[in-house]
Amino acid sequence: MAAFVPSLELVERVCVGEINAIARLLTRAEAGSAECRPALDEIYRRAGRAHVVGITGVPGSGKSSLVAQLAKEIRAAGGKLAIVAIDPSSPFSGGSILGDRIRMNDLTGDPGIFVRSMATRGALGGLARGTLEAVDIFDAAGFDMVIIETVGVGQDEVDIVRASHTTVVVSAPGLGDDIKAIKAGVLEIADIHVVSKCDRADANKTIIDLKTMLSMGLALAHAPGWQVPVLATSAAKGEGVASLFDAIVRHRAALDAQGGMAMRRRLIAERRLLKAAEGIIADRFEQHRGGRIADLLGKVMSRQASPYAAAVKLLNEIGMED
Amino acid sequence: MAAFVPSLELVERVCVGEINAIARLLTRAEAGSAECRPALDEIYRRAGRAHVVGITGVPGSGKSSLVAQLAKEIRAAGGKLAIVAIDPSSPFSGGSILGDRIRMNDLTGDPGIFVRSMATRGALGGLARGTLEAVDIFDAAGFDMVIIETVGVGQDEVDIVRASHTTVVVSAPGLGDDIKAIKAGVLEIADIHVVSKCDRADANKTIIDLKTMLSMGLALAHAPGWQVPVLATSAAKGEGVASLFDAIVRHRAALDAQGGMAMRRRLIAERRLLKAAEGIIADRFEQHRGGRIADLLGKVMSRQASPYAAAVKLLNEIGMED
Repeated sequence: MAAFVPSLELVERVCVGEINAIARLLTRAEAGSAECRPALDEIYRRAGRAHVVGITGVPGSGKSSLVAQLAKEIRAAGGKLAIVAIDPSSPFSGGSILGDRIRMNDLTGDPGIFVRSMATRGALGGLARGTLEAVDIFDAAGFDMVIIETVGVGQDEVDIVRASHTTVVVSAPGLGDDIKAIKAGVLEIADIHVVSKCDRADANKTIIDLKTMLSMGLALAHAPGWQVPVLATSAAKGEGVASLFDAIVRHRAALDAQGGMAMRRRLIAERRLLKAAEGIIADRFEQHRGGRIADLLGKVMSRQASPYAAAVKLLNEIGMED
Repeated sequence: MAAFVPSLELVERVCVGEINAIARLLTRAEAGSAECRPALDEIYRRAGRAHVVGITGVPGSGKSSLVAQLAKEIRAAGGKLAIVAIDPSSPFSGGSILGDRIRMNDLTGDPGIFVRSMATRGALGGLARGTLEAVDIFDAAGFDMVIIETVGVGQDEVDIVRASHTTVVVSAPGLGDDIKAIKAGVLEIADIHVVSKCDRADANKTIIDLKTMLSMGLALAHAPGWQVPVLATSAAKGEGVASLFDAIVRHRAALDAQGGMAMRRRLIAERRLLKAAEGIIADRFEQHRGGRIADLLGKVMSRQASPYAAAVKLLNEIGMED
């Protein structure tokens, strides 16, 4: 059976917001097949209007409930919204357990919202590429806002969040040492901090901790003139979500007004160019697995050549032509 | 001031286990400078005897306490041990908060143990390379066992753990939904499961859950004939650590006896070859940042070219010669 090749006609259908066309192209983009390159290149050229919002939080921070409530807020304001949710998944089977998806259920049936769960890829990359191209697809399809939701701990997650115009970091009160250490890694990338579960007694301590870290200058000045806020929300009580939406909108306005958007776009373009290059290398690796790769692997396994020396040879020999 | 270039004489000193030489080369490897390539290539050729054990666990699983206790057990058995602890850290400053290091303090002063904390690198990669080369250095320096300790959630962590001969996944009782979802991602890579904090009342449920998932065939048969055990430990009571050490030793023996080691070595070599190639690309990207990169970035930013199309051009134009 011949593989389905996305046509430029499909791109046109995506760009007028046809749901079936979007779903089809998303599936092909996630598979990462070479045949959909021309379509995705065209999608990229058509994109560039959506406000891309990265929302990340440590495990247990209640970020999925928050995203679901935020989605309702955005819909109430009339904006079309897409959510790209990245699930931790098996590096082997590509399967995933979809706790997060279940919480999104009460959003289904609304044509102005599109939720796409992406499996993280194992072995040879793919996570970043498929995800960012999903954002392009939603962007080109006319969604006003695209939320990338990640479990924010690893570098992959930080990478993806850094592909956003506005980054929201969700913290929960009362988490342990490990969580604190991890938070250090994502603290600096926040344009907006949220402390969830603010109905809990220890929430105030977390808010004060965050404000203290911010006052110590741990945050980057992402947008000139932007003061990183620390917002309190409660999914249980439904509190603070309107303020979060407001802060997201204000951050975008600050980026646009103060010239921060150009800087942000440059960072995103840099990141994507590098990620694309890495993806191409991974693809070539797969293509040559039986040939040159096997020979070089043998040398690495027998410790005749280091992985670095073998990689230099590999890159020279398999060539970079498309 | 000229940068310090590691000499092959330094390699000789590393290979006889000289602590100062090891520390110096580790620092250079972590910095990822090109000058230390010949030294690290030679180190790689000399390595290959150590038993590399990856220990990972979700945040809050108590893995650091466990590693500290395991270290004492290994030392009591007379083996020389190195620990490479990977800290989540800032993608911008390279700084990190070192909660895990503090727990290791009671191991200091023992010359048969060497603990090295590695910062995760931001932006343009480096995490995997520096870490795996640290393992090589300890291996070549004659350490019998090298433990890679990671906070296992993201793909980076899975990657590193998959560079091990034996992978231990630590779970704690009573963690939430997010944690469960994450566990799915690391469950399959476990050669040995540990449920920590088994003094807690809900520990038994976690043990049963894990055994159920294993019986459902979610685990890979890493070593022919190896039955993945689920062990209970308590850092508070100091229980179960001897059994864990025993299981680690038995797993290595099973790999050796049943021919699983060759398969494992092949997987590790593949992973390292690809990671090295990605690292080279990232380095070239940095080198050409002002030239061809700037031009291509402009095209990506103005949406004249997609990141993929620009990356293909980039790889063709900057060349792969060393």
